[in-house]
Amino acid sequence: MSLAHSCARALAHWQRPQLQHACRLQNNLPSNAFSTSSVLPGNRAIVYNTNGDPARVLSAFSFPDLPPPPPNTLNIRLLLAPINPADLNVIEGVYPAKPEPDTSLSQVKDHPLFVGGNEGLGRVIHIGEGVVGLQKGDWVVMSKAQSGTWSSAKNVSPSDVIKVPKQGLSEAQAATITVNPSTAYNMLHDFAQLVEGDWIVQNGANSAVGQAVIQIAAAKGYKTINFIRDREDVESLKKHLESLGATHVVTYDELSDKSLREKVKTWTGGKGIRLGLNCVGGKTTTLMARLLGNNAHLVSYGAMSKEPLSLPTSLFIFKNLTCHGFWQTRWYNGKSIEERQELLETLTTLMRDGKLQGPDHEILTIGGMDSDANASETIRDLVARLGRGMYGKKILLRIEETA
Amino acid sequence: MSLAHSCARALAHWQRPQLQHACRLQNNLPSNAFSTSSVLPGNRAIVYNTNGDPARVLSAFSFPDLPPPPPNTLNIRLLLAPINPADLNVIEGVYPAKPEPDTSLSQVKDHPLFVGGNEGLGRVIHIGEGVVGLQKGDWVVMSKAQSGTWSSAKNVSPSDVIKVPKQGLSEAQAATITVNPSTAYNMLHDFAQLVEGDWIVQNGANSAVGQAVIQIAAAKGYKTINFIRDREDVESLKKHLESLGATHVVTYDELSDKSLREKVKTWTGGKGIRLGLNCVGGKTTTLMARLLGNNAHLVSYGAMSKEPLSLPTSLFIFKNLTCHGFWQTRWYNGKSIEERQELLETLTTLMRDGKLQGPDHEILTIGGMDSDANASETIRDLVARLGRGMYGKKILLRIEETA
Repeated sequence: MSLAHSCARALAHWQRPQLQHACRLQNNLPSNAFSTSSVLPGNRAIVYNTNGDPARVLSAFSFPDLPPPPPNTLNIRLLLAPINPADLNVIEGVYPAKPEPDTSLSQVKDHPLFVGGNEGLGRVIHIGEGVVGLQKGDWVVMSKAQSGTWSSAKNVSPSDVIKVPKQGLSEAQAATITVNPSTAYNMLHDFAQLVEGDWIVQNGANSAVGQAVIQIAAAKGYKTINFIRDREDVESLKKHLESLGATHVVTYDELSDKSLREKVKTWTGGKGIRLGLNCVGGKTTTLMARLLGNNAHLVSYGAMSKEPLSLPTSLFIFKNLTCHGFWQTRWYNGKSIEERQELLETLTTLMRDGKLQGPDHEILTIGGMDSDANASETIRDLVARLGRGMYGKKILLRIEETA
Repeated sequence: MSLAHSCARALAHWQRPQLQHACRLQNNLPSNAFSTSSVLPGNRAIVYNTNGDPARVLSAFSFPDLPPPPPNTLNIRLLLAPINPADLNVIEGVYPAKPEPDTSLSQVKDHPLFVGGNEGLGRVIHIGEGVVGLQKGDWVVMSKAQSGTWSSAKNVSPSDVIKVPKQGLSEAQAATITVNPSTAYNMLHDFAQLVEGDWIVQNGANSAVGQAVIQIAAAKGYKTINFIRDREDVESLKKHLESLGATHVVTYDELSDKSLREKVKTWTGGKGIRLGLNCVGGKTTTLMARLLGNNAHLVSYGAMSKEPLSLPTSLFIFKNLTCHGFWQTRWYNGKSIEERQELLETLTTLMRDGKLQGPDHEILTIGGMDSDANASETIRDLVARLGRGMYGKKILLRIEETA
């Protein structure tokens, strides 16, 4: 069966412009190859059918209104969904977590369509027969990884979502709760048995996870030494992180200076630093690891420098350093729904108490009146700029219904 | 008080040649500065009074017969004591474990004398009042680190030694049991919960620890993939390690070849390798770590390449690798005398059952008739050659009584 033939058969029930669009995706032709100016009724998702450069393989894809949910199923309207760096790695095909194709959009097994996005906030629109514990209007977040959240709406099983109490939470906080603050909380909790007054170090302290670490640590009474890149406005960034609860903020240049070790000793009163959190790798992390005390834990959750972790063996042998990795996806896979719920409650309590802010963000709205072609251009431009590191803020997608 | 004066006062009770020798040590003069041809009665130790190149700071030092042991003390005659690589690092002053000066030899607090050697086998010669559980003629090994075992005899507290049943053990096996086989056993035991049929990898597989790992793993039914340096007689070394129980022996050159990964998969039947043991560091260890399965542990106990451990962060994040260090000294410090005794019993049982051989070794005897000057030359020559890596075998010191 030829590609074009199976594609046509699969999508025979869509109207013609969608068929053209789906085929365009499948063949990876440039976005203007079949562009139409029609505005499609119903919903829209950001999809891909093959791994590659997100700025090339992503497209907007319209689809009709969802049918009423079958028994034990929900319709949810997605309100906001972040574009996390890992989401782009998933699309590139270089990330270990692989999404399932969206069965309601992929009509033929041989030619799957994947919806981008791992986390996001949804509102319950319709409830199928037999669903308990959720009501129309409830806020929910995804309980499993790679759910395909870059969509205006979708059908989900009740076990795929966890209810989030709205009270005191912004949409942006709720839409970004399952990855970054969860990573921060678990890294502070799962490796070293910290008590109030203990010290931790972290690099990439201005990342979304880093800022959550600062706030959660401050809420728990842990002291933090936070490393950031030097930059023009470094003093204002230092002030910002201090306002979140950072005990000290230090640039990597300052970290390279041998005098820092003595400064740190003065700060900690000689108390051994128990935990290091790393999302950078390379020399910066080597220097940070040397500041750790005996029996410390170094937990890596990213590698922004793209350089390996390089550590003197003596730190392991004589200072009993232990190095771990943390991946929130693995955490979810190993935990019960009750444990996930508990984590969410802990984090939402911190948020409601004003101890954990949402991320610094911008919202990109894909308007309901845009054509798929225009929406595709918009999303491709955005991910290209993200790929070049041109955003300091987290980008949240708001994909409007098309009708 | 001048150095010479305090030295003279401290050693006033020794006969003159010893005084000259002690002063020579203290001042770090060349070994022939005060050389005498006299043969001294009694005992001898290999000592130093300052950290530095062992080939420069070590000297033979004679001292009279030990007095009868005071209450709760033993005289032991040291039969054999290894020169382990770490012993030379201790003398250089670059090792984290620092010995106490020998109080019976150091007569002035300001000018301590240190006896070299960390482990060794002793025979009980005299028993002080109140000592229970030990008899004249019993074999003992040291229960604490940096005991100063390069000596013909010493006084020890009963808690400083552990009795070793002689039956079925060679002197060389007993003299080397507390460091290398103990390290091997604990690394196999303390990190991954291995079961029969599980796979491990190790580098430096021809080291004393490496050979003990091979044998203990074989005794427990674990499969080992063992990495060694390429060399002229590599096939005979491979055969030797296989005869000890190695499942596979592979050179670092073969490890660098991409085809090895597929070979390893065939060997293990795709089963994830659970544990890696590293005493090399650098690229070799990076390549070895890539062979590990999910949730594996990499334990480092040495850094023969003097290069840091360099590992892709993805191994930590996505494969949940955990990196540890192992140091037998820390193990002893954290364990009760009963736990140390239990380890010794486990290892001596393996030895008696023929499952754990002693190390490939040479014995260097410091003859009782040698002068201190000659003995000093002998030991300095030896450590100089050891420092240049000129021995493939473990060197065991046998220091004869001088009378």
